[in-house]
Amino acid sequence: MSGELESLEHILQTYIPAQELKEVWRILYGRECRSLDLPEDAVQAAISGSFELKGYYLIEAAPEQLRRQNIVRVGLIQNKIQAHTSLPVLEQIHALHKRIADMVEAAAICGVNIVCFQEAWTMPFAFCTREKLPWTEFAESAENGITTRFCQELAKRYNMVIISPILERDEAHGDVLWNTAVVIANSGAVLGKSRKNHIPRVGDFNESTYYMEGNTGHKVFQTAFGKIAVNICYGRHHPLNWFMYSMNGAEIIFNPSATIGGLSECLWPIEARNAAIANHCFTCAINRVGTEHFETEFTSGDGKKAHNDLGHFYGSSYVSAPDGSRTPGLSRVSDGLLVTELDLNLCRQTSDKWNFKMTGRYEMYAEELTRATRPDFQPDVVRE
Amino acid sequence: MSGELESLEHILQTYIPAQELKEVWRILYGRECRSLDLPEDAVQAAISGSFELKGYYLIEAAPEQLRRQNIVRVGLIQNKIQAHTSLPVLEQIHALHKRIADMVEAAAICGVNIVCFQEAWTMPFAFCTREKLPWTEFAESAENGITTRFCQELAKRYNMVIISPILERDEAHGDVLWNTAVVIANSGAVLGKSRKNHIPRVGDFNESTYYMEGNTGHKVFQTAFGKIAVNICYGRHHPLNWFMYSMNGAEIIFNPSATIGGLSECLWPIEARNAAIANHCFTCAINRVGTEHFETEFTSGDGKKAHNDLGHFYGSSYVSAPDGSRTPGLSRVSDGLLVTELDLNLCRQTSDKWNFKMTGRYEMYAEELTRATRPDFQPDVVRE
Repeated sequence: MSGELESLEHILQTYIPAQELKEVWRILYGRECRSLDLPEDAVQAAISGSFELKGYYLIEAAPEQLRRQNIVRVGLIQNKIQAHTSLPVLEQIHALHKRIADMVEAAAICGVNIVCFQEAWTMPFAFCTREKLPWTEFAESAENGITTRFCQELAKRYNMVIISPILERDEAHGDVLWNTAVVIANSGAVLGKSRKNHIPRVGDFNESTYYMEGNTGHKVFQTAFGKIAVNICYGRHHPLNWFMYSMNGAEIIFNPSATIGGLSECLWPIEARNAAIANHCFTCAINRVGTEHFETEFTSGDGKKAHNDLGHFYGSSYVSAPDGSRTPGLSRVSDGLLVTELDLNLCRQTSDKWNFKMTGRYEMYAEELTRATRPDFQPDVVRE
Repeated sequence: MSGELESLEHILQTYIPAQELKEVWRILYGRECRSLDLPEDAVQAAISGSFELKGYYLIEAAPEQLRRQNIVRVGLIQNKIQAHTSLPVLEQIHALHKRIADMVEAAAICGVNIVCFQEAWTMPFAFCTREKLPWTEFAESAENGITTRFCQELAKRYNMVIISPILERDEAHGDVLWNTAVVIANSGAVLGKSRKNHIPRVGDFNESTYYMEGNTGHKVFQTAFGKIAVNICYGRHHPLNWFMYSMNGAEIIFNPSATIGGLSECLWPIEARNAAIANHCFTCAINRVGTEHFETEFTSGDGKKAHNDLGHFYGSSYVSAPDGSRTPGLSRVSDGLLVTELDLNLCRQTSDKWNFKMTGRYEMYAEELTRATRPDFQPDVVRE
């Protein structure tokens, strides 16, 4: 999208002298994260595929005596839709499959162990339109839909765990739709699924018109490369959502999202990063990128005229570490693959240092929260 | 402290051209906050008192039909200790009283309605030493100690609500010490007190040696200028702590703190701001500033030699709005007063827009949290 800034980091690096930049970086981004040397084949694939490729070591954990290093490479993929929203459904899906296949191949060359795609990655984010057809036709079975089978192939081929957030059609429960992340093991088996727990009612995010709050709780998936969980999009605004994934043992929580500049851009660097800090875990925030145009116009409940797009998805996907350090973000305007090397030992090391779970007083909060949900709850207010 | 950066914002403003700076600011700090015109008398007081004075309109709320604007000016004060830590206790306290009296007078000239001081503001942050005397002598009654009486005078004189975080001695309960914020109404009456709910065990913050987790819950104080709460220091790492103050109706949550660069600086801009976003309220983060030297050396459990200071308190106090916007921070190195004008109507407006309380599913979390606190809790982990 013309006129859109490439990235915040690009501006900082262009104008601020090296010595000051170091301090700015420390305050904004925490401990320095070194660049990964990425294989030349991957760099070439990114150039010929016109997507950004970045790689970082997020930060090192201290060596321990009783545990080995626990190194994992995660890949975050952000991408535009590949075919116009007016083209046949299957054509749109296949174009996205093709794009993702290319980017996952590059991830594999970079040694990625776990890859996560953006929210509802097989379709445009059409919920702004409030029209049902053809958009509900993008919904498919989490267990054996064409997208899951496509991901199983990739997972097996590359020995990679794949998180595939789709619009799910649940035929076994009366054709209900869900916003669901399918987790596929590196063996190619479907390990399970995690449904979006919190559904927005904000701006053009009319998702509550299409699907309801998830019923899969806060499952954590034990993969060959660590314990992971998926907090989909709007769930990142809910600290308790992150927290319960963490209490169930998640070392990495992925946050596949779709959000736009006018609404949330100044929240984006804050929420997933705060969750990494508060829960002593890694978090991976992934946003789609670009502007999607629809043939039928729609209004936005903001007093303005009908229009044909939701606004600019600003990308800026990034990874945060438990100590609050983070990687730079991917581009605000281009497709991209962010490869980040983590040492999962840092989760427990940070927990032992900061002790948030130990000092959390959860019995008190369980009681207070229970009380607060009752219809006769009286806030504790002191008056003169 | 020589070699310390003045502030992040100073660097950005020095090097980044105006047009790019606007975008950088939007992404980093949200909606633009305009500078307040501060009275010349206050500017002069700041110059002669050698403290920084900054003022902002944080952001405007939309006009409503049934509620008037709800404008409040808050003042955040960060300051160095004023007398060497080896001087007599009363001399140290009086020097701090004198300093704060001057800064509160400037706040009054600026029309501040609610002022908050830094954590344990009447003393050096001596808990790093693990010595009891003379530090426990700084503890005083929350209801009628010399500091509370001092603050009552100021509150009456300036028609100002004062939040005074002190080390409390609770004679009525066996001489127990607490880390307590005393809330004094603009009438001069003690409205109540709020004790620190979470006590750190990290680095040199040996506070658990001196006092225990607070027992005053999550009280909100209805003042003449809005409903306020106080989340002291380490409590900012606990999202549930912020949350319960918000559930009790807080429109502004103050976070008086004492924290150092090596430990937490990249967390500082994230946590209080995330709390403002997640809870649809304003948050005010206040950190002390400067380096405090102690005569007796102490070790830090970090394998290093004994030393005589805790490190550099980096100031950087700031205010965040419910929509994620924030003010620039105060200096990293100087005493300062930050005056910010808020419209409290923005809290409910943001809640109606984003609906985090409505979409929060608190019954589910009350149940899950209750289960998670039981000794026989089994994390929900899916294995292949």
